[in-house]
Amino acid sequence: MRYELSQTIALLECTPVALNALLRSLPDFWTFSNEGEGTWSAFDIVGHLIHAEHSDWIPRATMILQHGESQTFKPFDREGQNEKSRGKSLPQLLDEFAAVRGKSLSQLRAMNVQDGDLDRRGRHPAFGPVTLGQLLATWAAHDLTHLHQLSRLMAYQYREAVGPWSVFLGVLQCTGHSSAA
Amino acid sequence: MRYELSQTIALLECTPVALNALLRSLPDFWTFSNEGEGTWSAFDIVGHLIHAEHSDWIPRATMILQHGESQTFKPFDREGQNEKSRGKSLPQLLDEFAAVRGKSLSQLRAMNVQDGDLDRRGRHPAFGPVTLGQLLATWAAHDLTHLHQLSRLMAYQYREAVGPWSVFLGVLQCTGHSSAA
Repeated sequence: MRYELSQTIALLECTPVALNALLRSLPDFWTFSNEGEGTWSAFDIVGHLIHAEHSDWIPRATMILQHGESQTFKPFDREGQNEKSRGKSLPQLLDEFAAVRGKSLSQLRAMNVQDGDLDRRGRHPAFGPVTLGQLLATWAAHDLTHLHQLSRLMAYQYREAVGPWSVFLGVLQCTGHSSAA
Repeated sequence: MRYELSQTIALLECTPVALNALLRSLPDFWTFSNEGEGTWSAFDIVGHLIHAEHSDWIPRATMILQHGESQTFKPFDREGQNEKSRGKSLPQLLDEFAAVRGKSLSQLRAMNVQDGDLDRRGRHPAFGPVTLGQLLATWAAHDLTHLHQLSRLMAYQYREAVGPWSVFLGVLQCTGHSSAA
């Protein structure tokens, strides 16, 4: 299927609004619980999404358009949010995510990416050559992988409360997957 | 951990708003695509959630409070939404889900469930005895299992577009899980 940038942008616009609607008014039970030591809470996920806006998507897209394969992307620090999220509330992070995502999308529009640009290449530190189209599709899929993680870690809080229904709830059978970008 | 009904209600209130924020303005590419024959789209999931409001949660809670274990729940038809969703648009279904969920929560509040009621038992057609608390926790976890499914089936649409990043996107490693209630 042909990749269309407009579909990516449509999803990227919705994610901050959806996370805000889901999380903003929930008690800490849902938003600060995780799946055990070393795993993330909803709070951590929103912090991670903010960090990725600053460090990953637009910086890498800019590097592809300006330098092609001659420069290698900086590796992305998956735990980079910890320092920046400290002392903030979840509503603050949700507002910040909406703001930085809005700014990223403005920058993306200003790049005026044409269909022909989607095959332009950059260099990933692990994968080697990757295209601008792959990077932009990954930006949207990365939102979804964290929505997937979020629904799983929230459901995990009810793994005992649901009693025998656990066998029918697919999300409780999900063993979790590492995720980075 | 002690089960608290207020946490369940807080989540049940947010789900329709979150789904509306995520899905309402997305192109059909995201909302009518599925993971292959016999699998569900976002449209199907919202229809299923509406159907469950009508047929599952409040009717079963009422049966527990009125009849205890003396009556067995009617089995839930997992494909029951197909007929009812036909000819409707996704925005129509999102509005309908918000309305029926609001009505269900009003009915739940009117039941005035006390902590002591959470251990009251009903009879599930497959499991046998289940408690009211387990049923209500499952209601919330069922929202989450479908949010999990939704993020997975949407990410599936980009399984090729992301190129080498697919190995880092946990949601693309999720093999899917059956889900019923």
